[in-house]
Amino acid sequence: MKIIILAGGGGSRLFPLSRTSYPKQFLKLNSNKSLLELTIDRFSTLVKPADMVIVTNQDYVQLVKTELIASNALEAHILVEPVARNTAPAIAFAVRYCIDTLGCEEDEVMFVTPADHIISPVEKFTTNLGQAVVLAESHKIVTLGIKPDSPETGYGYIKAGQPLGSGFKVDSFREKPDRATAEAYLAAGGYYWNSGMFAFTIAGFLEELRAHRGDLYALTTTSLEEMRANFTQMPNISFDYAVAEKSEQVVMLPFLAEWSDIGSWDAVYEVLEKDTDGNALQGDCMQIECSNTLVLGQSRFIAGIGLEDILIVETADVIVVAKKGESQKVKELVSELKANSRLEADEHMTVYRPWGLYTVLSSGQGFKIKQIVVNPGKILSLQMHYHRSEHWIVISGTAEVTTGADIQSLHENESVFIPQQARHRLKNAGSGPLVVIEVQTGSYLGEDDIVRFEDIYGRQDEDRVKGFAAGV
Amino acid sequence: MKIIILAGGGGSRLFPLSRTSYPKQFLKLNSNKSLLELTIDRFSTLVKPADMVIVTNQDYVQLVKTELIASNALEAHILVEPVARNTAPAIAFAVRYCIDTLGCEEDEVMFVTPADHIISPVEKFTTNLGQAVVLAESHKIVTLGIKPDSPETGYGYIKAGQPLGSGFKVDSFREKPDRATAEAYLAAGGYYWNSGMFAFTIAGFLEELRAHRGDLYALTTTSLEEMRANFTQMPNISFDYAVAEKSEQVVMLPFLAEWSDIGSWDAVYEVLEKDTDGNALQGDCMQIECSNTLVLGQSRFIAGIGLEDILIVETADVIVVAKKGESQKVKELVSELKANSRLEADEHMTVYRPWGLYTVLSSGQGFKIKQIVVNPGKILSLQMHYHRSEHWIVISGTAEVTTGADIQSLHENESVFIPQQARHRLKNAGSGPLVVIEVQTGSYLGEDDIVRFEDIYGRQDEDRVKGFAAGV
Repeated sequence: MKIIILAGGGGSRLFPLSRTSYPKQFLKLNSNKSLLELTIDRFSTLVKPADMVIVTNQDYVQLVKTELIASNALEAHILVEPVARNTAPAIAFAVRYCIDTLGCEEDEVMFVTPADHIISPVEKFTTNLGQAVVLAESHKIVTLGIKPDSPETGYGYIKAGQPLGSGFKVDSFREKPDRATAEAYLAAGGYYWNSGMFAFTIAGFLEELRAHRGDLYALTTTSLEEMRANFTQMPNISFDYAVAEKSEQVVMLPFLAEWSDIGSWDAVYEVLEKDTDGNALQGDCMQIECSNTLVLGQSRFIAGIGLEDILIVETADVIVVAKKGESQKVKELVSELKANSRLEADEHMTVYRPWGLYTVLSSGQGFKIKQIVVNPGKILSLQMHYHRSEHWIVISGTAEVTTGADIQSLHENESVFIPQQARHRLKNAGSGPLVVIEVQTGSYLGEDDIVRFEDIYGRQDEDRVKGFAAGV
Repeated sequence: MKIIILAGGGGSRLFPLSRTSYPKQFLKLNSNKSLLELTIDRFSTLVKPADMVIVTNQDYVQLVKTELIASNALEAHILVEPVARNTAPAIAFAVRYCIDTLGCEEDEVMFVTPADHIISPVEKFTTNLGQAVVLAESHKIVTLGIKPDSPETGYGYIKAGQPLGSGFKVDSFREKPDRATAEAYLAAGGYYWNSGMFAFTIAGFLEELRAHRGDLYALTTTSLEEMRANFTQMPNISFDYAVAEKSEQVVMLPFLAEWSDIGSWDAVYEVLEKDTDGNALQGDCMQIECSNTLVLGQSRFIAGIGLEDILIVETADVIVVAKKGESQKVKELVSELKANSRLEADEHMTVYRPWGLYTVLSSGQGFKIKQIVVNPGKILSLQMHYHRSEHWIVISGTAEVTTGADIQSLHENESVFIPQQARHRLKNAGSGPLVVIEVQTGSYLGEDDIVRFEDIYGRQDEDRVKGFAAGV
């Protein structure tokens, strides 16, 4: 069995913790592990990391690598989508990868899962996995359905038909319903939420793809390289629409564990531990006569007074305060921010780079201050700025600093000045992380004032260098 | 006539904007002027700044001076209370100052006012002033009373007696009532809130003081210097308790203008301009389907979603979110913070010093970063730190930096390193403000790691140097 983890999504529903450049699957919400890490752990009792394929896009590769280190699963495969499409192309691409690169046979079972759900207890989920494998091996497309406990209008529904094995034949898939319809489904019973988790054999998958999406099938039955090259021709379509809703071979397995796709701050509140007043509190906060509140603080002290059913989420650059039940409107907020081309919508104050990360600590008239953390052995691009000078102060670790022709070692508490228009580069010459405070001075301090002569891999090919976003 | 402005109060009811080191009278709430500045302006149509005496304490002298510059009233007198007592000693001290220093005669009228009220329109207030002078000159103690528009339990009440001139003889003063009593007062009519504003002649004041507080009278009928020397013996008592409530000579003038002592965030909401949904918004904020909210943002983006009757006040280090009607509980919050000896209760990230100000921009493992602004010609103390080094980077202006025996000039974009245990001092050698970024590095970065060899006035007397709070 191979596990296909879909980790390319960039949702905005958990803004301000999630940003375009740091989506939900990387958030730590109900534990000290990210949702992706928890997803990987969930399967580790059944398969080795080497049997997992994590499908993501170029922007998230570094974040995924960090998670693999954290979950001690470095052997897991990272498959990068050439362009963002929907789940059907992503799954097909992963299946192709399993055949070409991992040498999977026709009858090998693939289990497809999103990377950003919360599921517990794992034991019950493992039982579902076993059931799914059995059904998939009889060439069925297995989908996992969640028994509804409320008339949700945000999910697609599956109407169960005749019992089959540990599941049911699928009578039909239903679009996201309106409130009344959802209530009718709930009252009638026999309806399940579509979890977006599937299981099938490679043969079963290809057979149904051929039957229902010839175009996608044709693009999939080539080589991995061809598929990658032609990925832009892939239809932007979900696996549900492309196959599941049309196929006669779909079986629905009732989900045994507790499940949440935590698609809003309201949903986050539900999964978190609460005090006796129903307050779920994280960070440096104090509640005076508050009940049923959510407070997630990251960067400063937060006090609530006489609040009821209020959600407060705080980061270094944004505070969102929402009435409980209204948090799905965070989407509107993010669209509005994007419409005003506000950086907050896309990026945190901390930006992850292939060599480490940097955090904008402060900025004001004529200066900008960053904390730069360079991982051991890593090096930044050889660069130059027209409008700003930089003062680097080593807080911990050992830096190798290039300024013009000069190369020098800088140790804790030592500093160097980099004048405007001087070619410079920063390298971690030590074995631990290198932490540097950078004080930029100048009349213009935009990230776009940067000329790269050599990228972080020492490549001078300008086109390849272009691939790297702005940043130190 | 002389105006006595009581500006020594350190209220915590408008936390987090007000702090012990930066109380309400210095806040800009409903305009680009602080409450103290507005108070000074209020009298400037009738008297010159030289006729105003601002009573405050040592901690606020710099802040008051800044306000006097802002309101172009540098000739106003600043009288510093040796120790914090209540209003009776403060007023007596100011009266003594008017006699000894300003050479006032017995029959000169004194008008006493708090520095942190909002009053408009000024014209109506000016009319009250005229009325007060007339009554005071017949040796009455004049108190201004506010006609209640709600059953407030937070104010003392005055029951009006027989009409006298443009006011009424006072039947009696009433303690802060409970809700029921307050409602009864409101229904009955003829009750007024005690505004804390008074007018009297020097003779009238001394006469009533002698009659009702012999101890205070004795301490007041000395010289200013003696009074200052014996100030610790002053009873801690308000002018209301000491004199107004006992005297037969008190007249109450109904207040003609709109008045607010803005004693809570609820009260601030009332005086601010609102949009069509009743939202009072300041700073970088976005409200989605919110009504009757207050948002005061200082340092970052704040979004509200589906909120109603919610107050949000944000500073660089603290966020307070309160249900409207509950904001008086901010007091409990501040007490709690003080009980936990949290710095936030007393100080802002920006700290005002005699030489200028500094702002803590950021701090983390092994470093702390400050922005230091030194006013023209000002100099910091000659100091030394055992545990931290400092890197100074000049952002604008010209610095004269002493390091050990060495003295050097530092210009924009230049930097200097100050090792642990090196004697150093910073001076603004230019004509404009000097802005420096200080990056502190070391294992211990507490403000108390400082040894001062010479204070900012070049004094080496350790006892006098002790007077200066910690800080750069």
